[in-house]
Amino acid sequence: MINVSVAKTAEIMKNVELGKNVEIGDFVIIGIPPEGKKEGELKTVIGDSAIIRSHTVIYAGTVIGNNFQSGNHTAIREGNIIGTNVSIGTMSVVEFKTKIADNVRIHSQAFIPEYCELHEGCWIGPNVVLTNAPFPKSAKSKEFLKGVIISEAAKIGANSTILPGVKIGKNALVGAGSVVTKDVPDGKVVVGNPAKVVRDVFELKYPTGEKAYEEGET
Amino acid sequence: MINVSVAKTAEIMKNVELGKNVEIGDFVIIGIPPEGKKEGELKTVIGDSAIIRSHTVIYAGTVIGNNFQSGNHTAIREGNIIGTNVSIGTMSVVEFKTKIADNVRIHSQAFIPEYCELHEGCWIGPNVVLTNAPFPKSAKSKEFLKGVIISEAAKIGANSTILPGVKIGKNALVGAGSVVTKDVPDGKVVVGNPAKVVRDVFELKYPTGEKAYEEGET
Amino acid sequence: MINVSVAKTAEIMKNVELGKNVEIGDFVIIGIPPEGKKEGELKTVIGDSAIIRSHTVIYAGTVIGNNFQSGNHTAIREGNIIGTNVSIGTMSVVEFKTKIADNVRIHSQAFIPEYCELHEGCWIGPNVVLTNAPFPKSAKSKEFLKGVIISEAAKIGANSTILPGVKIGKNALVGAGSVVTKDVPDGKVVVGNPAKVVRDVFELKYPTGEKAYEEGET
Repeated sequence: MINVSVAKTAEIMKNVELGKNVEIGDFVIIGIPPEGKKEGELKTVIGDSAIIRSHTVIYAGTVIGNNFQSGNHTAIREGNIIGTNVSIGTMSVVEFKTKIADNVRIHSQAFIPEYCELHEGCWIGPNVVLTNAPFPKSAKSKEFLKGVIISEAAKIGANSTILPGVKIGKNALVGAGSVVTKDVPDGKVVVGNPAKVVRDVFELKYPTGEKAYEEGET
Repeated sequence: MINVSVAKTAEIMKNVELGKNVEIGDFVIIGIPPEGKKEGELKTVIGDSAIIRSHTVIYAGTVIGNNFQSGNHTAIREGNIIGTNVSIGTMSVVEFKTKIADNVRIHSQAFIPEYCELHEGCWIGPNVVLTNAPFPKSAKSKEFLKGVIISEAAKIGANSTILPGVKIGKNALVGAGSVVTKDVPDGKVVVGNPAKVVRDVFELKYPTGEKAYEEGET
Repeated sequence: MINVSVAKTAEIMKNVELGKNVEIGDFVIIGIPPEGKKEGELKTVIGDSAIIRSHTVIYAGTVIGNNFQSGNHTAIREGNIIGTNVSIGTMSVVEFKTKIADNVRIHSQAFIPEYCELHEGCWIGPNVVLTNAPFPKSAKSKEFLKGVIISEAAKIGANSTILPGVKIGKNALVGAGSVVTKDVPDGKVVVGNPAKVVRDVFELKYPTGEKAYEEGET
């Protein structure tokens, strides 16, 4: 391991591959086996230059690209595929088998359940809750799980809730506190409960009058 | 203690009774005395076959039945009575003096304050917030606290908020992101802010056309 | 250090000043340097009689007055100025450069981002989310951040969302689950998404018929 810094109280379990220049804080655990697996049975990969902040938990079988950052007390379960330049904020929870593309930023206290897909450059605000269970606690609940899809460069405002199977379009913006019950078209701004389209994201302007978002930009 | 596995970094305080086949992860603390009590003064009980995941905190005086599971970073305060087959998910907070019946599942990042009652087989989704203070920070706030009652087999969707003293009926389903300001009748589906009845839970169907919930079933 | 009790597993970094009668729980870290700073470069101050509960993280450069309490797993970043008699609940996240006045109570799992101001005696309920980014992930997002202002003795109900730059007036009360998109006048009660004024806070009565809030009282 080249230039890896692991705090004395951190616990790195078997079969964890750490890249170059990784920093791992106190009370972190990496490589916990999920139920039914033994320590070391699943390979866990953390790319170069990761900063894993204190009290973070990463389960075995998750694979993370370069330049990853986690906030304090972040929990990431098994079997996730996470790209490069991703950050997952303080106290966020990522369940298992999600796909998180490059340049995704997940802010603090968010919840990302299994089967969700977060595409290139999207932004998940603080306390955002994605869902996947249209029929919770029904007999066949697990057969009908449907993750949320957040498309490229979409932004999900703080404390929003996105219902199971909903797709948020490219560059779309979900206003803070919204409850999104159906798909959002590319480039639209939605707000409310249930969320409704109120304008085009490319109409949004800074107080200076400049456009806040440019088409083609992510 | 029979077949109990306690991680080296976990801290089990005095007067904690652990059942058979209990597993306790790293950086867990069980039996912290609440304010005004000394270590060991209150008895804490964890039933057989519990899995207490890393960084969980359980205060003294809480009594938990068999087959309990906690997620990572879960916080459970003093004086709670928790049944068998209960799971409390990652980063959920359970305050003191709640009653949690058998077969209750509390998902991740939920908040359950004092005086709430969670009845047999109910399901609390991720980031659900129950409340108990109709007059926060008023001079007599504590005299008028009223917990939420979640009846048997009710399901509370992700990131919903339930106001103080509200009773959710048996088998009822609260849609994700709802704000529930008054009682919900048995078997009804409510959605919105404020939440309104939109249908009967027994009308809900899987994409296959089968009923998702059967009367009499919990 | 006079009568300071620090758990064996807690980590107090360099240049941390602890007041008298401070109690620090297990797995706590105080004085973590933020990015770009070295350990000890910024001074961290914790006033007299603080109770810092287990798994709490406080970054370097934050200054906290007397009689502070943190819940378990609380995360407080760098450069915050926090008054006396403040409590910050379990799993709440306070980002950097906030101002938190005397007698403020922040409940569990709340989110307070940079540039927010919490004035004397205000109350932030569980899972409340304040925001500061009107244009998340835009090219100039950071230039146009605007914190939320919570005025004296205002109360923010559970799981509410307050949009960037919004000012909540003195003694105002935001109902649980609200999404507040514009300023709230002093002494008003707002509810809903978007939140609207529904009454005067001084009209609210306990079940006994007494007024719950008195003018002039904080």
